[in-house]
Amino acid sequence: MPDRIYLDHAATTPVDPRVLAAMIPYYQNAWGNPSGIYMEAQRARRGLDEAREQVAGLLECLPAEIIFTSGGTESDNLALRGALASRSELGRHVISTPIEHHAVLHTLEAIKRAGCDVTLIPVDSEGFVEPAAVQAALREDTALVTIMAANNEVGTLQPIAEIARAVKERNPHTLVHTDAVQAAGVLDIRPDILGVDLISLTAHKIYGPKGIGLLYVRRRTELEPQILGGSQERERRAGTENVAGAVAFATALELAIREREQHSDHVRRLRDNLWLDLRERIDGLHLNGPVDFDRRLPNNLSLCFSGVEGESILLQLDMAGIAASSGSACSTGSTEPSHVLTAMGVDSDLAHAAVRLSFGAENDDSHVDRVAAELPQVIDRLRSLSPVA
Amino acid sequence: MPDRIYLDHAATTPVDPRVLAAMIPYYQNAWGNPSGIYMEAQRARRGLDEAREQVAGLLECLPAEIIFTSGGTESDNLALRGALASRSELGRHVISTPIEHHAVLHTLEAIKRAGCDVTLIPVDSEGFVEPAAVQAALREDTALVTIMAANNEVGTLQPIAEIARAVKERNPHTLVHTDAVQAAGVLDIRPDILGVDLISLTAHKIYGPKGIGLLYVRRRTELEPQILGGSQERERRAGTENVAGAVAFATALELAIREREQHSDHVRRLRDNLWLDLRERIDGLHLNGPVDFDRRLPNNLSLCFSGVEGESILLQLDMAGIAASSGSACSTGSTEPSHVLTAMGVDSDLAHAAVRLSFGAENDDSHVDRVAAELPQVIDRLRSLSPVA
Repeated sequence: MPDRIYLDHAATTPVDPRVLAAMIPYYQNAWGNPSGIYMEAQRARRGLDEAREQVAGLLECLPAEIIFTSGGTESDNLALRGALASRSELGRHVISTPIEHHAVLHTLEAIKRAGCDVTLIPVDSEGFVEPAAVQAALREDTALVTIMAANNEVGTLQPIAEIARAVKERNPHTLVHTDAVQAAGVLDIRPDILGVDLISLTAHKIYGPKGIGLLYVRRRTELEPQILGGSQERERRAGTENVAGAVAFATALELAIREREQHSDHVRRLRDNLWLDLRERIDGLHLNGPVDFDRRLPNNLSLCFSGVEGESILLQLDMAGIAASSGSACSTGSTEPSHVLTAMGVDSDLAHAAVRLSFGAENDDSHVDRVAAELPQVIDRLRSLSPVA
Repeated sequence: MPDRIYLDHAATTPVDPRVLAAMIPYYQNAWGNPSGIYMEAQRARRGLDEAREQVAGLLECLPAEIIFTSGGTESDNLALRGALASRSELGRHVISTPIEHHAVLHTLEAIKRAGCDVTLIPVDSEGFVEPAAVQAALREDTALVTIMAANNEVGTLQPIAEIARAVKERNPHTLVHTDAVQAAGVLDIRPDILGVDLISLTAHKIYGPKGIGLLYVRRRTELEPQILGGSQERERRAGTENVAGAVAFATALELAIREREQHSDHVRRLRDNLWLDLRERIDGLHLNGPVDFDRRLPNNLSLCFSGVEGESILLQLDMAGIAASSGSACSTGSTEPSHVLTAMGVDSDLAHAAVRLSFGAENDDSHVDRVAAELPQVIDRLRSLSPVA
């Protein structure tokens, strides 16, 4: 049997052996509770502090601006609910887009039920949001703007720095949050470059483990904690700290940033080659997201195939040894078309047929060749079986 | 230098090598996102499902009754907020005690600010709460009773089954939650034995890693999710699942339950011997919590020393190679006396001098001998230095 080809790095990545090696000592030796005053505790405390300092150094921010969480979803929830709860006098209006991750959209629905106004700025057919449109939607009582840095399904890179500038220009008091979970491995996500106040990140999209993420919170930004208890994380997120996880996160982020250019070039080249091959070999092939490949995640290829169901393609690919997904891992099993494609105006028939291929470090040219050979066959076979063909 | 003696197992435990061995494959091989439909994802899904089934088997409940969380604190927050939010029509009254963990007490304060009534049933001088007192405090609109199974500071084992019975007898619609984080390693915590609806557990108190816990939720109990996003954990806790953590939790719980009797006997014998030694050797020694040792955690010894500050004792013990804590790891650094000891009526001078010694699997007789030799010297030395002596 040929090797498996994993092309769903947007859903999760393998754990880099260097990350695992950095974690293990925190299970084997430095397993203390960082809140104690004795040696075993201080060893764990040092690991946690150093992880936080390492992350702060990489993001060029202060250690106190980093809150470790259990992952991107918790970070998004904390950012939105925490920022709004602490700013209720400043405003009850939030601006976002219809193509955010469900961690943001579902939290916005809850916030709306609690009495806030939510404005979703429409995106264009490539998933872009206009900074000017965000600025125009600002109200005096806009407490928060939350727009993801890179879309997980179609790879659209939003002009976050421009959006943040447009917001702050008109409304200096409005906070800007970005979910940069997908962007961290390939973009410059330093808060001062993005110009935002809150950034959600997670380790398992950058070759770290699941169960650890963080929220960057710009100094002097009030944030109401959402998990209450002990005084960990400067009273902004209670619970015994996941020290091994924090160390893993810092190591993964260090590797991601140090190897970012090389990694981006690598996945971009593979992605571009696969696109060129598939475009030649498959009729009725639609690219979702930006046509200008410089404005999409370098590892993302999101495709629709007229007359074929996405789920059937994925099953056939899996049998051929290729792992891919329909878009968002978090809504697998749903029979609804993707909310992202729908918001971009993709026809609902096509939106059911989306396949996302996302490259990673361990992919190589042979993988491109195999997918370029297999996928056209899969599409041909399914089209020949399809009642609509 | 002699070996270190770790006596703060109530704060956290070392990770059992068997637990670590069970986790590693989920970082090295089965690292997929359980929501995918392809092989790599299904391998992770299988690990997650099996972990849930293993836990359900051990607790004699249904897999669907288990929600994996990031730890005990999140579980407590989810239980309280989730249960109340979904039962707001049934009632806005909550009953608890003043000696709960801060994860419960601080959440109750937030719930109170949101308009709920909270009744804290006083505890006696040993930390016990009377089932009859709980029953008497019930109101028609009591939505929830939350009382910890075993106190983390003084080791008091509450009569949870009796309390639950008393509650359900009068108010079948009132939910009963227990934080069993400290109890899991030494008590029978099966939901049907305890008769409760919600149970919080965490792995790092039973020789598992930090960052993974669970909430047991009895079937047909409505619970409003507190972290929103994808449809993981049957839409009750969003976020990519910490598969390695879930596997570690299941393994740790399996070992804890399989070895519970032997482990309890082991720590009880060490604890009892130390108590007998110290009682003979130190004047002005006060035992906090139950005098009847069958009614306290078998590994817990909580002591106060008249005329000496707890913090100074801990520093001296640490220098002598002995790791202990003042009570709750989560409030270290606080200059307030313990809220638990205060609620039990311990004099505030004494409450500042509390030292908690909590035994674990790797302790042995030689540790008892060394602590029994060192601690009296530490107390003597500090008393001779103390201005009040």
